[in-house]
Amino acid sequence: MTVADLAEPFGGRRTLITGGLGFIGSNLARALVVAGADVTLVDSLVPAYGGNLHNIAGIEHQVHVNVSDVRDEHSLRHLVRDQDVIFNLAGQTSHLDSMRDPYTDLEINCRAQLSILEACRAGNPQVKIVFASTRQIYGRPVRLPVDESHPIAPVDVNGVNKTAGEWYHLLYGEVYGLRVSVLRLTNTYGPRMRVKDARQTFLGIWLKLLLTGEEIQIYGNGEQRRDFTFVDDAVAAFLLAADEEAPAGAVYNLGHPQHVSLRELAELLVELNGGGSFRTIPFPADRKAIDIGDFYADYSKLERELGWSPRVPLREGLERSLAFYRDEGEHYW
Amino acid sequence: MTVADLAEPFGGRRTLITGGLGFIGSNLARALVVAGADVTLVDSLVPAYGGNLHNIAGIEHQVHVNVSDVRDEHSLRHLVRDQDVIFNLAGQTSHLDSMRDPYTDLEINCRAQLSILEACRAGNPQVKIVFASTRQIYGRPVRLPVDESHPIAPVDVNGVNKTAGEWYHLLYGEVYGLRVSVLRLTNTYGPRMRVKDARQTFLGIWLKLLLTGEEIQIYGNGEQRRDFTFVDDAVAAFLLAADEEAPAGAVYNLGHPQHVSLRELAELLVELNGGGSFRTIPFPADRKAIDIGDFYADYSKLERELGWSPRVPLREGLERSLAFYRDEGEHYW
Repeated sequence: MTVADLAEPFGGRRTLITGGLGFIGSNLARALVVAGADVTLVDSLVPAYGGNLHNIAGIEHQVHVNVSDVRDEHSLRHLVRDQDVIFNLAGQTSHLDSMRDPYTDLEINCRAQLSILEACRAGNPQVKIVFASTRQIYGRPVRLPVDESHPIAPVDVNGVNKTAGEWYHLLYGEVYGLRVSVLRLTNTYGPRMRVKDARQTFLGIWLKLLLTGEEIQIYGNGEQRRDFTFVDDAVAAFLLAADEEAPAGAVYNLGHPQHVSLRELAELLVELNGGGSFRTIPFPADRKAIDIGDFYADYSKLERELGWSPRVPLREGLERSLAFYRDEGEHYW
Repeated sequence: MTVADLAEPFGGRRTLITGGLGFIGSNLARALVVAGADVTLVDSLVPAYGGNLHNIAGIEHQVHVNVSDVRDEHSLRHLVRDQDVIFNLAGQTSHLDSMRDPYTDLEINCRAQLSILEACRAGNPQVKIVFASTRQIYGRPVRLPVDESHPIAPVDVNGVNKTAGEWYHLLYGEVYGLRVSVLRLTNTYGPRMRVKDARQTFLGIWLKLLLTGEEIQIYGNGEQRRDFTFVDDAVAAFLLAADEEAPAGAVYNLGHPQHVSLRELAELLVELNGGGSFRTIPFPADRKAIDIGDFYADYSKLERELGWSPRVPLREGLERSLAFYRDEGEHYW
């Protein structure tokens, strides 16, 4: 099923997306708008994060934009009321920033999550909530591919706080009956991702460097293997998990059958771009300390239970990303 | 070795105890004072927590008391400087309070822990830190006894936040080289525990009810089995873990070879007290939702690596507790 098919059941329904002006949030909003959903986007527009008004270019009159911070529990209490579904995607995503300023990461990835859940418990206990978690909570894999039962052992403050945020969701489901589900995302990429820097994904800054004629830098030997999810596939997973029939309290990995090394990824990008260069450089110490090595996920549970599978091959996803930033890069540099 | 033997190496050394006017902190302070250590106690004296000035009766002139809250990062920054060892015991301990007011639990069990670690990283990176964690982070056991590799799956906000607090410690050890170790405590009891209510341990309120002639209430059928650590044994574990030779980055369970049901415990208490009564009542809903069932720990790692074992049998520990509160209960009711 296409994203459009999956969005269809949300026609006429009230949906709230936290982090709605960000990368995945805005792509999800586009699908929901096409389906005729009532879409409210909450976003703080903090410059270091993923929110970008250009992300809703063309749909700006079909969504409600509410600029506020998920740390602001009062605005949240109002906003969650009467929603049918909350896609909870707001987060601080930079691992390095979480080490430099652990408090802000805590406020957003822990405290704000409690606020959202408390607001739902008090004002909208029937709402369906899909929480954007991350493969980062697994830390350095002790086995590959990593399935949902892999030990949780985060290696940075962001990973610890995202774990807490995820567990609050599961806990509020267990104790108060909130209908939550959790998606553990891995290296999502595609149009509308942050490309100014590596705060959202290293692939963002790689694309920008390539398109602006600068050299890509790979930390280490480039042999670290990873899996990548094109944003349309991530959006499909959010829609499936938000379905009325989807089980509550479930946790799902996303992933992709193609596991490539960072060096192979850089080679592919240079090829698709018809030019460009990369080189490996030694790991900066602060990054090395929190690097997780090889990672790829076992996403068979999501496949089995909700019928999800990644539809966009890496090559196609990268081509579509390059095309997007070639045209619209000026709004993202 | 006795607690006095174990405290001896700390003579002349500078030690800081957060939560130092509390139950375990004040017992630890007594051992360190006898050994001739320089002892600073930080405590917020928040009424709902374990701090009680009577806990240092008799040693009040041999310790430095600094009344401040671990949430206050400025006082911490000053206090951690020049310390040789920090025993980090300050915490919000009530599971129910954490569900009613998750934000306060977060501030103390997460944010303040980050403050302490940041203060050490910046101002005292050589310090040895022993963190008081809890068996609560394991949640409902999937196997018994629970060893340190048991999955972490907390069932309440307190458990989630204590997990984060513990993991920050391990992370700051890993990334910044801080010399941390972690003790996962289970049902610590003894003189100077909070007995006003069940906020620190249910055994506290049981003792008070018994000594004031009221009936003990056991939730459920009373068949839940637990292990109990007498406070002197807990103090011994903190001293062992703080030793210069003890490995950094290690996590240890505490536990006890006697696993008793709550009903057996109540029977034993009534017997030792020479009177009293108890009855089982249905679980209140809010407690049932976060109850963990049977729990007892495998503490063989602490035994093997640091030579710790529980020296005080349950009967003796309960007798000593009853004797203490019979004499000094008025300061604790």
